[in-house]
Amino acid sequence: MDSGSGSGRINYIRLTSHPREDGPQPPKITWGAANPAERGPVIASLTTPHHRNAIGTHAGSYTLYRALAVAAGRLKADHRPDLTDTSPTNTLGPFPQWHDPEKIVSIDPYGAVTSRVFAEWVAAGHDVRPTIAITQAHIEIPELRDAIREGRLKPDGKVLISERGDCFVTKAAVEPVWYLPGIAKRCGTTESELRRCLFQHTGGMFPELVTRGDLDVFLPPIGGCTVYIFGELEAITDPARQLSVRVHDECNGSDVFGSDICTCRPYLAHGIEVCLETAQAGGAGVIVYNRKEGRGLGEVTKYLVYNARKRQAGGDNAAAYFTRTECVAGVQDVRFQELMPDVLHWLGITRIDRFVSMSNLKYDAVVGSGIEIGERLTIPDDRIPPDAHVEIDAKKAAGYYTDGHVPSEDELKARKGRSWSEPEA
Amino acid sequence: MDSGSGSGRINYIRLTSHPREDGPQPPKITWGAANPAERGPVIASLTTPHHRNAIGTHAGSYTLYRALAVAAGRLKADHRPDLTDTSPTNTLGPFPQWHDPEKIVSIDPYGAVTSRVFAEWVAAGHDVRPTIAITQAHIEIPELRDAIREGRLKPDGKVLISERGDCFVTKAAVEPVWYLPGIAKRCGTTESELRRCLFQHTGGMFPELVTRGDLDVFLPPIGGCTVYIFGELEAITDPARQLSVRVHDECNGSDVFGSDICTCRPYLAHGIEVCLETAQAGGAGVIVYNRKEGRGLGEVTKYLVYNARKRQAGGDNAAAYFTRTECVAGVQDVRFQELMPDVLHWLGITRIDRFVSMSNLKYDAVVGSGIEIGERLTIPDDRIPPDAHVEIDAKKAAGYYTDGHVPSEDELKARKGRSWSEPEA
Repeated sequence: MDSGSGSGRINYIRLTSHPREDGPQPPKITWGAANPAERGPVIASLTTPHHRNAIGTHAGSYTLYRALAVAAGRLKADHRPDLTDTSPTNTLGPFPQWHDPEKIVSIDPYGAVTSRVFAEWVAAGHDVRPTIAITQAHIEIPELRDAIREGRLKPDGKVLISERGDCFVTKAAVEPVWYLPGIAKRCGTTESELRRCLFQHTGGMFPELVTRGDLDVFLPPIGGCTVYIFGELEAITDPARQLSVRVHDECNGSDVFGSDICTCRPYLAHGIEVCLETAQAGGAGVIVYNRKEGRGLGEVTKYLVYNARKRQAGGDNAAAYFTRTECVAGVQDVRFQELMPDVLHWLGITRIDRFVSMSNLKYDAVVGSGIEIGERLTIPDDRIPPDAHVEIDAKKAAGYYTDGHVPSEDELKARKGRSWSEPEA
Repeated sequence: MDSGSGSGRINYIRLTSHPREDGPQPPKITWGAANPAERGPVIASLTTPHHRNAIGTHAGSYTLYRALAVAAGRLKADHRPDLTDTSPTNTLGPFPQWHDPEKIVSIDPYGAVTSRVFAEWVAAGHDVRPTIAITQAHIEIPELRDAIREGRLKPDGKVLISERGDCFVTKAAVEPVWYLPGIAKRCGTTESELRRCLFQHTGGMFPELVTRGDLDVFLPPIGGCTVYIFGELEAITDPARQLSVRVHDECNGSDVFGSDICTCRPYLAHGIEVCLETAQAGGAGVIVYNRKEGRGLGEVTKYLVYNARKRQAGGDNAAAYFTRTECVAGVQDVRFQELMPDVLHWLGITRIDRFVSMSNLKYDAVVGSGIEIGERLTIPDDRIPPDAHVEIDAKKAAGYYTDGHVPSEDELKARKGRSWSEPEA
């Protein structure tokens, strides 16, 4: 797209389907180049359209609210962020993985330090914006109080601050930046097929995906992830110190509201507990929180599936757990774990001592990307909520990791979830 | 967009910029019509492109993961959901508000009952999909244990089930469906200006926004909301029974991870407590959870602002609280509360007895939309986390509701947040 700048108001529209032939060309991105100067900045802001070298724009889907704010006259169209004092609280990287065009394809490894490593471009008037922000925080997790009371954890005044369950963390918010040739490879398809699918199966979002083969970086309007680090950052990449990791996919109903139909929040709390243990022993713990609600299908689909599970003949049972999602969504899961390890490579991780997850999809993705995994940790039985045994049994039978018993087909059929007293409708 | 169907694989691309002149025309949507037959279904699925009468598609931004799944050969392009047994667990509406083209413009009031009210269209082969799903759940909120222990709440075995803090709820997941002329009116601008802004300030998302004036419904790739209802649904619209409401805007760092820099999670927990009180007294409580992370600016911007607040000359203080966001984002807030009341109208609400919020923006939006508000409830002082006084004081001074003292300018400057021990950079 193209727009004037300076006035805060643009009154003509230029469609974006084709590259301009006149005027200055935007900076080139050489994904995976040996250093930031050769890699070049990703420019996806809208204030200087002739500099843009990527499809899409910043802030994921929140760009739509920004657009509403412009429409309502509350945000100047040409606003550029004043980034004074916003730089990361901690230094992280660069790691060799940052220079490998295959290790990281869905985030920009330089996303947190754009102002520093692309300072020359910024000085020349390019609107280069961070896609990662790193800060520090005190957080309080109520489940840690139980861990302290039951003697599993002891406050140390530093990592786990007090009996209240408050801890000190370094955290990073990460927006997706997709290098399309790399994403296509992860999908096992061609770049042109990927571009066609992204265009067609979003209802025609961003025609540039199919018309602008010259732009191979895309900032999709979708959630990214947040990384919570317990312990010293240096421990993450120190082979002499232990590392624990949980990669958690968002489940708002459990993570925030404590729904008892799944194990999401209890597994997350268990992961945080393991991370704290490791950090207190001199290592580090990492929680990655991915915005992939309802297995990447969204919450409406998830609730439709809940209803179908509860109402099917024979009631909710582990044998039919995955089938119900497939009937509604056409697929069991669209989380596409193949992109997930990128953030671990951004952190410089090459070995995980304790991986707090039972998912074979996550395990395969991490190991397949070249990261070693030591132990795999299941959720302790006493943390599984009342109605969540259907899920856990179905997952064990489907190949999720367990150090215990894998349920038989008869056991799966017998594993029943709660029924509604008498659902209306 | 256009595509073949049946093969699960489509090998040609048709750009979407202009309406087709040949072939059957899609069903007409008459927003706000007196009944569903006159209103007509919103058809945004991609399996029968010639039926489409809306811009965008289902599942918000998760459509991108679906597109990846198609690219990877895991999801058939022409899959249609089998909606057997997925219908709402509870009957809700229709209410007069559903037929008022101005009361609801950002969701489809018929979104939960598409299979029933548009059965004829479905029978004729139209792929009409729900944009709302209603289910029931048991949820467990750890903060309720404190409320029980401290004697503020007592389990009743029904709404608040036990000492464990588990409750019974009806909940709805709601995807956005925007009627563009109505959205423009809420923005105080023209429809064409809105369409231009939505196209340009998203980096060129959906050219149909500017080329297809014949399509006035848009399913934006953005998060919607979830509604949690405590007590009987009938109580919501019964003038003889009390209603409590909290409209909560997502804050992952606090809601899930308990960050102590803001009051989000504690205010949400307080809202749930008030909802339970009201439900136990024979009324109903409603929590609306909106996906508007970081005031609708996203988490990267939020963390950048945190860093700027902590590092500014004089340290984090209430006087400069809003300024820091404005410097980075160009605006204090893009949550655009003017659309928020729609979901309350969908629920049939005309009067809220207790509104658990201090936000003047939320209050003005709700009252401005014609819903009466009785009492406004602030967060109790003893629930404000250690580092969150900067936020609360700044908000009170900016016009947020308080039944207590409004801080003076000197007090704002004196209200300091925690500093980092020694931030690197």
